[in-house]
Amino acid sequence: MTQLADPGIDLDSPQARAERWLRDFQDALDARDIAAAADMFATDCYWRDLIAFTWNITTVEGREGVAELLGACLATTAPSGFHATEPATEADGVVEAWITFETAVGRGKGLLRLKDEGAWTLLTSLDELKGHEEHQGASRRLGVAHGAIADRSTWAEEREREEAELGYAVQPYVVVIGGGQGGIALGARLRQLDIPALVLDKHDRPGDQWRKRYKSLCLHDPVWYDHLPYLPFPANWPVFAPKDKIGDWLEMYTRVMEIPYWSKTTVTSATWDEAAQEWTVIADRDGEQVTLTPKHVVFATGMSGKARMPEFPGMDVFSGDQHHSSQHPGPEAYTGKKAVVIGSNNSAHDICAALWEHGADVTMVQRTSTHIVKSDTLMDIGLGALYSEEAVANGVTTEKADLIFASLPYRILHEFQIPLYDQMRERDADYYARLEAAGFRLDWGDDGSGLFMKYLRRGSGYYIDVGASELVANGDIKLAHGQVDHLTEDAVVLEDGTTLPADLVVYATGYNSMNGWVADICGQEMADRVGKVWGLGSDTTKDPGPWEGEQRNMWKPTQVDNLWFHGGNLHQSRHYSQYLALQLKARYEGIPTPVYRLQPVHHLS
Amino acid sequence: MTQLADPGIDLDSPQARAERWLRDFQDALDARDIAAAADMFATDCYWRDLIAFTWNITTVEGREGVAELLGACLATTAPSGFHATEPATEADGVVEAWITFETAVGRGKGLLRLKDEGAWTLLTSLDELKGHEEHQGASRRLGVAHGAIADRSTWAEEREREEAELGYAVQPYVVVIGGGQGGIALGARLRQLDIPALVLDKHDRPGDQWRKRYKSLCLHDPVWYDHLPYLPFPANWPVFAPKDKIGDWLEMYTRVMEIPYWSKTTVTSATWDEAAQEWTVIADRDGEQVTLTPKHVVFATGMSGKARMPEFPGMDVFSGDQHHSSQHPGPEAYTGKKAVVIGSNNSAHDICAALWEHGADVTMVQRTSTHIVKSDTLMDIGLGALYSEEAVANGVTTEKADLIFASLPYRILHEFQIPLYDQMRERDADYYARLEAAGFRLDWGDDGSGLFMKYLRRGSGYYIDVGASELVANGDIKLAHGQVDHLTEDAVVLEDGTTLPADLVVYATGYNSMNGWVADICGQEMADRVGKVWGLGSDTTKDPGPWEGEQRNMWKPTQVDNLWFHGGNLHQSRHYSQYLALQLKARYEGIPTPVYRLQPVHHLS
Repeated sequence: MTQLADPGIDLDSPQARAERWLRDFQDALDARDIAAAADMFATDCYWRDLIAFTWNITTVEGREGVAELLGACLATTAPSGFHATEPATEADGVVEAWITFETAVGRGKGLLRLKDEGAWTLLTSLDELKGHEEHQGASRRLGVAHGAIADRSTWAEEREREEAELGYAVQPYVVVIGGGQGGIALGARLRQLDIPALVLDKHDRPGDQWRKRYKSLCLHDPVWYDHLPYLPFPANWPVFAPKDKIGDWLEMYTRVMEIPYWSKTTVTSATWDEAAQEWTVIADRDGEQVTLTPKHVVFATGMSGKARMPEFPGMDVFSGDQHHSSQHPGPEAYTGKKAVVIGSNNSAHDICAALWEHGADVTMVQRTSTHIVKSDTLMDIGLGALYSEEAVANGVTTEKADLIFASLPYRILHEFQIPLYDQMRERDADYYARLEAAGFRLDWGDDGSGLFMKYLRRGSGYYIDVGASELVANGDIKLAHGQVDHLTEDAVVLEDGTTLPADLVVYATGYNSMNGWVADICGQEMADRVGKVWGLGSDTTKDPGPWEGEQRNMWKPTQVDNLWFHGGNLHQSRHYSQYLALQLKARYEGIPTPVYRLQPVHHLS
Repeated sequence: MTQLADPGIDLDSPQARAERWLRDFQDALDARDIAAAADMFATDCYWRDLIAFTWNITTVEGREGVAELLGACLATTAPSGFHATEPATEADGVVEAWITFETAVGRGKGLLRLKDEGAWTLLTSLDELKGHEEHQGASRRLGVAHGAIADRSTWAEEREREEAELGYAVQPYVVVIGGGQGGIALGARLRQLDIPALVLDKHDRPGDQWRKRYKSLCLHDPVWYDHLPYLPFPANWPVFAPKDKIGDWLEMYTRVMEIPYWSKTTVTSATWDEAAQEWTVIADRDGEQVTLTPKHVVFATGMSGKARMPEFPGMDVFSGDQHHSSQHPGPEAYTGKKAVVIGSNNSAHDICAALWEHGADVTMVQRTSTHIVKSDTLMDIGLGALYSEEAVANGVTTEKADLIFASLPYRILHEFQIPLYDQMRERDADYYARLEAAGFRLDWGDDGSGLFMKYLRRGSGYYIDVGASELVANGDIKLAHGQVDHLTEDAVVLEDGTTLPADLVVYATGYNSMNGWVADICGQEMADRVGKVWGLGSDTTKDPGPWEGEQRNMWKPTQVDNLWFHGGNLHQSRHYSQYLALQLKARYEGIPTPVYRLQPVHHLS
């Protein structure tokens, strides 16, 4: 094993270095020599594990963190077979290697980055459970049952029977509350893993979560970032899909992936039955009250799904139309009217632009500074290396891009981001100067790390410019600044006394933490046990510390057993649904899932 | 150009030989030296062109054929840039090279096979028209229109407007009659090429062409062979998809590919208006009479769509149920009944098996011998090299598989097929012995070339065994032999006097040529001008000569201008829709399309 004397092998090649490290690491693990294994890491190091070792989504830091993780997880994980799956590469003194390994119960993939001193970053992720592999490619199902089978039932009959029974004669193991992209992606994975699961959604049909939003909405992320699991968008799919087209895709995806999905269904309550060790979920299915008793409940109600409606004095006397941005019907009715939009993030900009396009007189009230990047620039500089036509051409598949993205530790992610946003600021310097000249207050995040960090930390505070900023810069969309003091019958009055006459007020005031849904459905006590959802504990604006280093409560065990959260953008819905589905599958099959370092709750919302 | 003196280059490597041939060929074409170009082919040679040189689908044979094709097409085609796109390979003395080239108006792909003597087979196919490339990958559409646009209309509004106008205020350039897999695949390609086209179909919704067929039907071809253009089935798709699942896929495909499609629409007549140079198509759209005036009409009504109903004496006195196999409702109503199925091909076997599975007493009347192969065997030996998980793993993409398949000249295709069927016969020798012992009359095609040649020559005469043959072998499905003489009130009587008591008679008697649809819709005169559709002129059973060497009238110009036929299995619908769509696109854009060797009509049906 230790012989490397073949004269044709370059002992210092990236490949040799990676293989040597992996072999030595495996040897240390085999010997259960935790100190030796931890010493193979650099002093500054990060090991991110996606449920392969920890049955949690967690990142440990430093050699002590590595040692602690191994101390808790090594024996039960019993990892084996660490090796590189393709030739390692080197850039800027860092060797990068795609790796694979096995555990006692599954097979994993990962990415290793080596510095001279040792491993700098290690990503380990669980890819599948042994004996419960998905039926894909060579192991796909036959479809037809060949042979002659008396009283054979067909696929259509089986589907019909399943639809009639699931939720009635047959209880789902998992209930997913919310059938947008998150619930649908998770539903698809649960289906592939043969877990009886049911996705519940309040809308008339899948995709309405998008269709019902404001008229001009298109995806702000480009197509390469947005694929759902199993069935990527075709090559002719537009870069930024319009909302109704995404709606159609989600609807057809739900059908062809055979996801059990109840439309027109709202959940009125979900309570945990400690004796029965199951949930009692009361749902209204198009007028019919149904009681479901799943073992697990997943909230996929949208990380931006719980509208934050402000309470300003005078809202009760205002005689015009007023609504939260999520309820905005679109601009058609407001031609020639005066519109005031409170807020200056994505929705505010999109709604202001659509109102202007339809001939409304529009004022945007900027309450705090906003981070803005141009869509093209973000796509080129921010995502291009991983999610673009160029990346695809370079062999960066969606799976690889997701793992690369996941391999960058949150602790240092801003360090990778800051130079990108410096580039953007330089590239679009004139543009930013014009916006500032128009009075728009810009920021780049607390530490200059830009949009993606804002998204991960607080899920708000930015606009991806697809056109509205030009209207702000040239004054077509008027700007006002400051907090709202009160409303009158026909105006919004700011704290500085500025009075903005209004026929329409849109509150583009953002969304609350997803545990607000838990409060509504499961009660405040349970919501408080779970605590705040989203954020990293970065101690930046709207993301209070202490440091957690992972998205709070997302896709991983929470302080409430058998209660889970799923969601995020299309990228996250795609990638992290894999780990949530595998966690549920392990529990469904009775595979032990000892959770390492279940995160404490520091904030209630 | 002629220097190859680099000492590192092996002049006899497959790559060097292929590149030398291509360079010399290009030189001869540049010099318009037809004799020299033709001399570069082997004595026995085949050049198959898919509309790149000939604006036809045609195969020329021998050096004379090559010279004749070039004499007619070289000047207008103005080919350039012939070169190999990846390292050539060699097997059994034949060098194989993937090639690319340009013409005056487009870009082409192809496959070259070289023997020592010269080119043995050459495939040239048109891949896209210059200036009219599809919007895919890096050139995909943006989707959203960035910027602020007064009175912007959204994707949903544009789609709604298009749907309201197409066929009324705006006339389609192409009307496709029939919206099964053929019409849908073609519709998708026309859409990508920005051709106003409308697919008309009589069923309630897309996919009903499959849903409405007999209950137990599953695809007989495996998934790798069945992909539609642009959007391949996902990796979890079953090998042999059940009919209703394919129906759902076609329905969602029609939607997400944005194919203009009228359901519940039947065409009552289509007449060519010589003065206006357009068709007058009268359609009944769910009760509303609509007149369409397209420039082109495509029949995509199913190469097996025109049921052939026999006329036996006594059919009028038979008191049980009787219907053509295409009208068979499924077995449910026939438990405990006596069923007689006339015919012994695919439908007959599937229907007999389903009736037996539901407890009917079943007799199959074998009128002539039938070719049978087991589904597994066919998949392994017949398709495995091109369409299988193994092929995908070997880098044989669907596009490559289609081009390889297309590159084998029909004249010698049976020579490639015979050894495969010899293998199958050997592998399943016991099985065939048992079938013969049960009295089943087997054949392997006129020349032992098996199923695929039967499909190409006559589109009938075989069963892909997915289970029914076992029931025949063990006597569960009873066999009778010979022609039907007449029916009585309660029985089928054969010519030898055998009387088969029957509550149900199913006529699994096959289908007529697609020009029967032309007779119905455009009149017998036009149907006769077009002549028989399908077959190669192989002078084998049901495929009379003279030799045509291509599928008669399919996907290429016919003797009736602006009238086209499209269809076949999923593989053909996928691959040949590309060439039909490009022919229509060239005409739509006014690009000259001089047709070489328009085939004469030898047979009327």
